[in-house]
Amino acid sequence: MKKFEEKTISSNRIYEGKIINLKVDEVSLPNGNTSKRELVEHPGAVALVALTPDKKIILVEQYRKALERTIVEIPAGKIEKGEAPEVTALRELEEETGYTAEKLDLIQSFSTSPGFADEIIHLYAAEGLSKATSGAVLDDDEFVELMEVSIEEAEQMMKDNRIYDAKTAFAVLWAKQKLAIEN
Amino acid sequence: MKKFEEKTISSNRIYEGKIINLKVDEVSLPNGNTSKRELVEHPGAVALVALTPDKKIILVEQYRKALERTIVEIPAGKIEKGEAPEVTALRELEEETGYTAEKLDLIQSFSTSPGFADEIIHLYAAEGLSKATSGAVLDDDEFVELMEVSIEEAEQMMKDNRIYDAKTAFAVLWAKQKLAIEN
Repeated sequence: MKKFEEKTISSNRIYEGKIINLKVDEVSLPNGNTSKRELVEHPGAVALVALTPDKKIILVEQYRKALERTIVEIPAGKIEKGEAPEVTALRELEEETGYTAEKLDLIQSFSTSPGFADEIIHLYAAEGLSKATSGAVLDDDEFVELMEVSIEEAEQMMKDNRIYDAKTAFAVLWAKQKLAIEN
Repeated sequence: MKKFEEKTISSNRIYEGKIINLKVDEVSLPNGNTSKRELVEHPGAVALVALTPDKKIILVEQYRKALERTIVEIPAGKIEKGEAPEVTALRELEEETGYTAEKLDLIQSFSTSPGFADEIIHLYAAEGLSKATSGAVLDDDEFVELMEVSIEEAEQMMKDNRIYDAKTAFAVLWAKQKLAIEN
């Protein structure tokens, strides 16, 4: 859909980084006026709703420099160049949690910040979990603590703002509905 | 919570914009190594779950330059400097939709992209909707189309990726649960 399309007049690349780039585009608006758009480029990410056989959701606690605090999230990671999202998802699940999955089902893909960033998260349900032989293997600069909690505990973490990001909030509601349907 | 805290060694401001800023921080990690963090600063935003008396959810369709496409979202807007989030929320609701609310209840605050941005969205339930006398009044560079759809239609829009952002996906699940409890 291109309704109300904003056409690019010129694009000024400000920064090319390791994870994100920044550009400022001058655009023409539907009414003929011009405006500027500050745009962050991101390679995209995957995230997983992983429920253990005893109906607990797997979460990871980690420090987020952007927020200057530690939060609790579902397992997630950015897509490496040329990598299929499903491959990223299985890799991140095993690296961050030590679990492997028989099957991944795409729940939903969504933009995280459509006002200024092109980041898309592909959210998967991980089915048929079992412990991988290797256990969790983290990157050099990655420090996370694994936890498995009930949906009620996850909802309490949302109220307490320990769960504090959109993908995880969505995942908790989704898992709650899934478990309610199954019961 | 400051577990696994990454302490700032130096901060390099790359860009100061109209809506976002970009800085690159050098940080010391829990294991004593150093790393770089690319960080976007954003003033934060509000968004609203607004259900009409006949149980329809109010949505707005707009072009998002970052995605180069048109998507359907719940009403939202960024917080102006010094503005209380509830004030932003009531203002955006009236400007974008022409509705006013008797009461706002905070559903959840969440980070949209904790890996690289400090943007927080405060999501409110708008209670007691009525048509404002003024109708919708948009900013000069704002082009949105208003729609009111049932939860079933909103779920179909998620499947079709017309609804394609995290806050709106969360809002649809939340509204579905709320209406299920009321019935």
